[in-house]
Amino acid sequence: MATPSGLIRALHRGTLGQNVVVDRIFSGIQPTGTPHLGNYLGAIQNWVDLQEKCSSVLYSIMDMHSLTVPKDPAVLRQNILDTTAALLACGIDPKKCFLFQQSLVPEHAELAWILGCLTNVPRLLRLPQWKMKCASQQSEGTVGLLTYPVLQAADILLYKSTRVPVGEDQVLHLELAQDIAQHFNKKYGEFFPVPKAILSTTKKIKSLRDPSVKMSKSDPQKLATVNIADSPDEIVLKFRKAVTDFTSEVTYDPAARPGVSNLVSIHAAVTGLSIKEVLHQATGLDTAHYKMVVAESVIQKFAPIRNEIKKLKEDKSHLMKILEDGAEKAKELAAPIYQEIRRLVGFQ
Amino acid sequence: MATPSGLIRALHRGTLGQNVVVDRIFSGIQPTGTPHLGNYLGAIQNWVDLQEKCSSVLYSIMDMHSLTVPKDPAVLRQNILDTTAALLACGIDPKKCFLFQQSLVPEHAELAWILGCLTNVPRLLRLPQWKMKCASQQSEGTVGLLTYPVLQAADILLYKSTRVPVGEDQVLHLELAQDIAQHFNKKYGEFFPVPKAILSTTKKIKSLRDPSVKMSKSDPQKLATVNIADSPDEIVLKFRKAVTDFTSEVTYDPAARPGVSNLVSIHAAVTGLSIKEVLHQATGLDTAHYKMVVAESVIQKFAPIRNEIKKLKEDKSHLMKILEDGAEKAKELAAPIYQEIRRLVGFQ
Repeated sequence: MATPSGLIRALHRGTLGQNVVVDRIFSGIQPTGTPHLGNYLGAIQNWVDLQEKCSSVLYSIMDMHSLTVPKDPAVLRQNILDTTAALLACGIDPKKCFLFQQSLVPEHAELAWILGCLTNVPRLLRLPQWKMKCASQQSEGTVGLLTYPVLQAADILLYKSTRVPVGEDQVLHLELAQDIAQHFNKKYGEFFPVPKAILSTTKKIKSLRDPSVKMSKSDPQKLATVNIADSPDEIVLKFRKAVTDFTSEVTYDPAARPGVSNLVSIHAAVTGLSIKEVLHQATGLDTAHYKMVVAESVIQKFAPIRNEIKKLKEDKSHLMKILEDGAEKAKELAAPIYQEIRRLVGFQ
Repeated sequence: MATPSGLIRALHRGTLGQNVVVDRIFSGIQPTGTPHLGNYLGAIQNWVDLQEKCSSVLYSIMDMHSLTVPKDPAVLRQNILDTTAALLACGIDPKKCFLFQQSLVPEHAELAWILGCLTNVPRLLRLPQWKMKCASQQSEGTVGLLTYPVLQAADILLYKSTRVPVGEDQVLHLELAQDIAQHFNKKYGEFFPVPKAILSTTKKIKSLRDPSVKMSKSDPQKLATVNIADSPDEIVLKFRKAVTDFTSEVTYDPAARPGVSNLVSIHAAVTGLSIKEVLHQATGLDTAHYKMVVAESVIQKFAPIRNEIKKLKEDKSHLMKILEDGAEKAKELAAPIYQEIRRLVGFQ
């Protein structure tokens, strides 16, 4: 599977796809509010790159997926706008991609119904995320939670997308989308391209309080997660309290020294330097001082983004307009494809 | 629960609902082509009555539900038109109700997603129809097959329907819709009326070849099922071959004499006479002769309908126009309700 840089080279060479098909990239983000460092480095930064390199790119704020976990409506409403503001501030440009709110394009739900009629229930019951999420929500599990991978398949296939940036935890879901596309093609005739993954090459950013787990929005330890709109004081505090170990030297050894290595990864990612280069810069620093160097690099990186988020959040109607305009454009793309699907399955 | 005539009396008295809410009736039919006698007497005849008595009535051709069982697209396409022609010929009047194709109103699928996020999977896995249908299709069971009762709930609630004509086999599904409505109201504030059943009072019409089972479109014995567009010859043949018993007298005793009693039920239903009245007419006839009397009454009843179906089927574009116009009107009703649902759940 292509890495982002491999994809970008392929796009330049025009060698993607057998029939020199122009690639279409689809990706989505759940509206959890302002993203954290892990979201930024793991996904959003790649999104910004991809919109520069590919002519057809769709990024969706996945509000329908948000309902699979109980949500306060006021929080969801606010999170949709905050996520949009953050994406724009990070450099997602609605002139270079379609940035839109999923629920404003009805065809996502419509296609999900059709694809659900091609998807066996036992396959979904076997997906590890189903059992994990049921357990973590201490619930029996809803239809939404069981079937959201089918909605994800619809999200992708509705636009005949060919490439999907995915994290490792989404690989099984992309495989489901691939199988559903092939099942549809077999039943109704060749129609969907089978979408391929763009696997992120960025190292997973870990919790600052427990480097054995991913940095996560829902971490109950507030100091574990650095929000990209955190104030400089908050950022300094979180890095100062970052869990490392009893060796004061700065080295990179994720297995033996996960805490310090996580700091090195973050430092490299936000500065754009290599691991070797940042280690060179850290020569002679103890971890306590190094934490402040990393904090400073994070503050530097996100200061303009933080200001832009603040500015954008002041104008709700501007944000809503962007999502609506994006949805209009996404609909123009989706409507003729969905019309053809209606015809293929016999609805007309 | 109100019977149709009970409902009709209540509608006349204006006593339905606590706040003199005007009732809205929703019902749907799967497009299986021209209906059979059981469909007509069990559902369509009631539909015709209800459109006369209630000012807000929606009847939907449930093409999305059709996909829960594997279908040839060309057959589905034809069946949608044939079912529409049959409903019109039977007296469903688009001036008195909204007759529309389900898949032309995207809000059905959209609301189904939202309601699926409120529905526990184990409840659906326990519904008897899930296991029965998996077994009969010899498949693992698809998401469509598991979750169609959630789509049914969306079908009903999308219009804030208050009354739903249902057969006995749909009572559990209506209870699910009621529970989902209450769950939504509890979570997001009072919004949906809890829809009530209108139970059909018509006797279930049985197979002419095996009076222990319902008359069914999918019966492999072709003589078991009388289609309302069957020719007089076909009708005569099917009734002549109807399974009865070795007693020649005509009596009504469904438990002891299911075959003859089924004929009496059909005779009463198509003539509009009581069981007692048709038994009086049958005095002195043996079952062989009585079969021909019943066949004749069925031929009489459906001759004009059969002619009308034939005429309507000649003009496909007229039928499609009726379904599209109906969908436009249904959408006008659904759109503001769905907008409000979007707002309640936090999509906007």
